[in-house]
Amino acid sequence: MGKYKAKVKKLKKKLSKLKKQIKASDGASVVSPLAPKAGFPALPVIGGVRFAATQAGVKYAGRDDVMLVEIAAGSSVAGVFTRSATRSAPVLDCQSKLKQAMPTDKPFAILVNSGNANAFTGAKGDASVDAICGVVADQLGTDKAYVFTASTGVIGEPLPHDRITAQITKLKTGLSADQAEAAARAIMTTDTFAKGAYREVMIGGKPVHIAGFAKGSGMIAPDMATMLVYIFTDAAVEQSTLQVMLSSINESTFNSITVDSDTSTSDSLMLVATGKSGAPLIADMKSADAKDFTAALGAVMQELSHLVVKDGEGATKFVAVNVTGAASDKSARTIALAIANSPLVKTALAGEDPNWGRVVMAIGKSGEPADRDKLSISFGDILVAENGWVADSYTEDAGADYMKNAELSITVGIGVGAGTSTVWTCDLTHQYITINADYRS
Amino acid sequence: MGKYKAKVKKLKKKLSKLKKQIKASDGASVVSPLAPKAGFPALPVIGGVRFAATQAGVKYAGRDDVMLVEIAAGSSVAGVFTRSATRSAPVLDCQSKLKQAMPTDKPFAILVNSGNANAFTGAKGDASVDAICGVVADQLGTDKAYVFTASTGVIGEPLPHDRITAQITKLKTGLSADQAEAAARAIMTTDTFAKGAYREVMIGGKPVHIAGFAKGSGMIAPDMATMLVYIFTDAAVEQSTLQVMLSSINESTFNSITVDSDTSTSDSLMLVATGKSGAPLIADMKSADAKDFTAALGAVMQELSHLVVKDGEGATKFVAVNVTGAASDKSARTIALAIANSPLVKTALAGEDPNWGRVVMAIGKSGEPADRDKLSISFGDILVAENGWVADSYTEDAGADYMKNAELSITVGIGVGAGTSTVWTCDLTHQYITINADYRS
Repeated sequence: MGKYKAKVKKLKKKLSKLKKQIKASDGASVVSPLAPKAGFPALPVIGGVRFAATQAGVKYAGRDDVMLVEIAAGSSVAGVFTRSATRSAPVLDCQSKLKQAMPTDKPFAILVNSGNANAFTGAKGDASVDAICGVVADQLGTDKAYVFTASTGVIGEPLPHDRITAQITKLKTGLSADQAEAAARAIMTTDTFAKGAYREVMIGGKPVHIAGFAKGSGMIAPDMATMLVYIFTDAAVEQSTLQVMLSSINESTFNSITVDSDTSTSDSLMLVATGKSGAPLIADMKSADAKDFTAALGAVMQELSHLVVKDGEGATKFVAVNVTGAASDKSARTIALAIANSPLVKTALAGEDPNWGRVVMAIGKSGEPADRDKLSISFGDILVAENGWVADSYTEDAGADYMKNAELSITVGIGVGAGTSTVWTCDLTHQYITINADYRS
Repeated sequence: MGKYKAKVKKLKKKLSKLKKQIKASDGASVVSPLAPKAGFPALPVIGGVRFAATQAGVKYAGRDDVMLVEIAAGSSVAGVFTRSATRSAPVLDCQSKLKQAMPTDKPFAILVNSGNANAFTGAKGDASVDAICGVVADQLGTDKAYVFTASTGVIGEPLPHDRITAQITKLKTGLSADQAEAAARAIMTTDTFAKGAYREVMIGGKPVHIAGFAKGSGMIAPDMATMLVYIFTDAAVEQSTLQVMLSSINESTFNSITVDSDTSTSDSLMLVATGKSGAPLIADMKSADAKDFTAALGAVMQELSHLVVKDGEGATKFVAVNVTGAASDKSARTIALAIANSPLVKTALAGEDPNWGRVVMAIGKSGEPADRDKLSISFGDILVAENGWVADSYTEDAGADYMKNAELSITVGIGVGAGTSTVWTCDLTHQYITINADYRS
C-alpha cells in the first residue's frame, strides 16, 4: 500500500509539472510576465479632459470596445502617425485635420474603437469616419473638423459604425475626469494589460501634470512603433511647439521600439495640452520651462513605449539593444534594428541562450560598415567578445546565468566610428505564434 | 489496494497523453511535410568529380559531418558568397582563391564540415582553414590555393580542425563518383532532408549533365539566400562565362528565397564545370549552346533553392509571393520581401488564415510607392481584393479552403507601374521557435 501511495504522489507531481509546461506554451490570455506588478497607475486628473468607455459590440462581446475623450476648447493638439502607404481611413482623416489652425473656441473630441481597424476599407472606410465624427460633433457641441478618431483591430473588414454612433449619447453621459483607465482598457486588442504612465513637473511655480495611456502589442515597429497612444497635459503649450516636442521625443521612444518588425496601418500618437494648470504658456523650445516640460513628457513617453514592448505578443524578455562606435547614428540604428528584429536572436533570447554568434550574424546582415576584428559584444555588464573573438574573461555559465533575467541588455561596439543608437525589443516565443496563427478565429 | 491500482492506471494514462502532446509540439527531428515524396534523386555521375563523406566528430556524434570533393585538373570553378560583413573565415578564403587564373593543370578540392561555422573565430579561424587546406592539398597532390572549404553550424566557437585533418586519408580512400548523396547528407545541420537536383541537356549533339546538392534551412535570406550549394557539370564552360551564368541565375533563385530574413555568415554556392562530357566549349553567353545550358542550369538552381525553402525550419507551407505593377522591379522586390518576411503574414499562413489584411499591412510598411485604391490581391486563382476593397466575388470560405494547400501563391498588383518580382518563402510555426530557442543545447 505504501508503495502505491508513493507512486501516486510521484505521478501526480509529474502530471502537475507537465500541465504547467502545456499551460506556459498555450495560455493565450495570461498577463505578460513583464507587466508592472503594481497594475495600472492612478493617473492624475488633467483639467479640461474627460473620458468615457462603453460596449458597442464592434467585434468583442462582454467588454468595453469604444472610448470617448472630450477636450476643453482652447487646447493645443499634436499628433504623429504611421508612415504606412496603406494607412487607415481614420489616420488619413486625423492627419488632414491637424493641419487646421488650433486652438479654437470649440472643444475637441477623440473617439477610438477596438476590434476593427477600418483599414483597406475603401470609400466605405472614409464614410464610416465621417459618420462617427458627425454624431460626436453634434453631441458634444463642436465641429466635425475637431473630432479625431482611431480604429484598431482586423484590417479589411467594413467598420459597423452604426454600432458606435448608437453609443455616443451614453458615452457623453458617462464622461468623467477619472475614467482614463476605463478608456485605456476599451482600446486594448491582444494587449494583456492596460498601459498608463504619468509625471508631475513644476512650471513657473505651478504643478503641471502629464498623463497618458497606450495600447499595442503585436505589429509594432518603427514608423512608428506603437499602435495607439494618447497623452494629456494641463500645461499650456503653443500648438507648433507641442508638435515639435512630440515629433522629437517620438524618435527616441515609440520610434525606437520593435516587437515583430511589422508596422501597423493605424499607429496614432496624440498629445493634448489644455492649459488648465494655470502655468505660463510654453512657446519657446529653448526656454527653461520647455526643457523641464520636455524632460517630464519624455519620461512619460519612454515609460509608455517600454510598456508596449513589455506587452509584446508572447514576450518574456525585455531587451535594450545598444550600439556604439558605428559609422554614424543612422548606421548604429540600422544595426540595432537588425539585431532587435532578427528571428534567430529573438528565439535565442526566448531560450535563455547567450548565443552571441547570432548577434554577430545580425550585425553582418545589416549591410552597415563593420570590421569583424574590431567588434565587441556585452550582455549586461558581461564582456562576451572583443577583437573578433570570445573574451578571455567570458564563461558560458556567466552568460547563461545572465540570460535568466527578465530585463536584458545587449551592447555592441562596432569600432569604426562614433555613431550610437538604442532600441528596445522583446523575445520571440511560442506564444507569439499561438496568438497570431489564429488571431481572427 | 484496488483503488490505488486504478488511480495509478488513470494517472499513467494522463501522463502518456500529456507527453504525447508535448512531443507533438516539440518533435524537432521530423522530416519536413514539404519534402519530396520520392526522397533524394539518383544524381547522374559527373565525369571528373568524386565524393566522400565520413565522421570527424566536429560536433555531431554518430553521423557523417565532413565531405570531400575531388575535381579533375582543367575544370572551371565559379562561386557566389554571402555579403555579410561578418562572413566566415572559409568564405573569405574562397573569395580570395577564386580570383586566381583557372583552370590549371592541378586538381581542385572542396572540403566542407558541419557542426561548426568557423565564423567570428578571429585569427584562429584563418589558421584552421589554412591547416585543412594544407592537408587536403598534400593528400590529393594539388596546391593549397586550389582547395576550397566551407563550415556550417554554430558561430563563434573555435573549429577543432585536427578532428577534420585526421580524416583526410580516410576520405581520400573513400572517393567515388557515386557518393554525392553521402556528401549531401554530411553537410546537413538542422535540415530534415537531403536536397539534390539534376538535369540533362544536349550541347553540340552530346549529352551534358548538371547535378547539385544543397543544405540550409534556417538563417536563409537574400545576400544570398542559402547556406551551402555545390553544383557540378561535365559541360566545358570557360571560367568567366561560368561565373557570369552563376551570378545571373543566382539573383532569381537563391537570392529570391527567404525563410526568416536572417543572413548566414557562411553562405556559399560553387559551380564546377569539368568538360568531361566532350561537348564543345561554351565561351559566348549569346550562343545557342550557352542558352540551352543556362536553361538547364537555371532549372537545377531553381529546384534546389525551392527545396531549401521547403526545408525552412518548421515550414508547413511553401509560398510564392508575386508582385506586379510596382514602380520598378526593385520596388516590386522590396514589396515582395516585405510580405515574405512579415511575421504576421507568416503566422497567418501557418494558421491557414486567409488574412489578406496582413498582406495590405506588409505592402504599406515596405515604404514603396503604392496606392490603397489601386491594390489587388489574389490567393492562387482567387481574387481577394481589388480597388482598395474586398472583391465582390470573394468569400472567406473560398479563401480558407485554399489556405489548406501545402503550396500557395500570393499575387499582389500594385497598380502604379510595370515592375515585377517573385520571391519564395515559408510559414512561421511553433516548430521554428522550438528548433531555434535551443539550437545550441
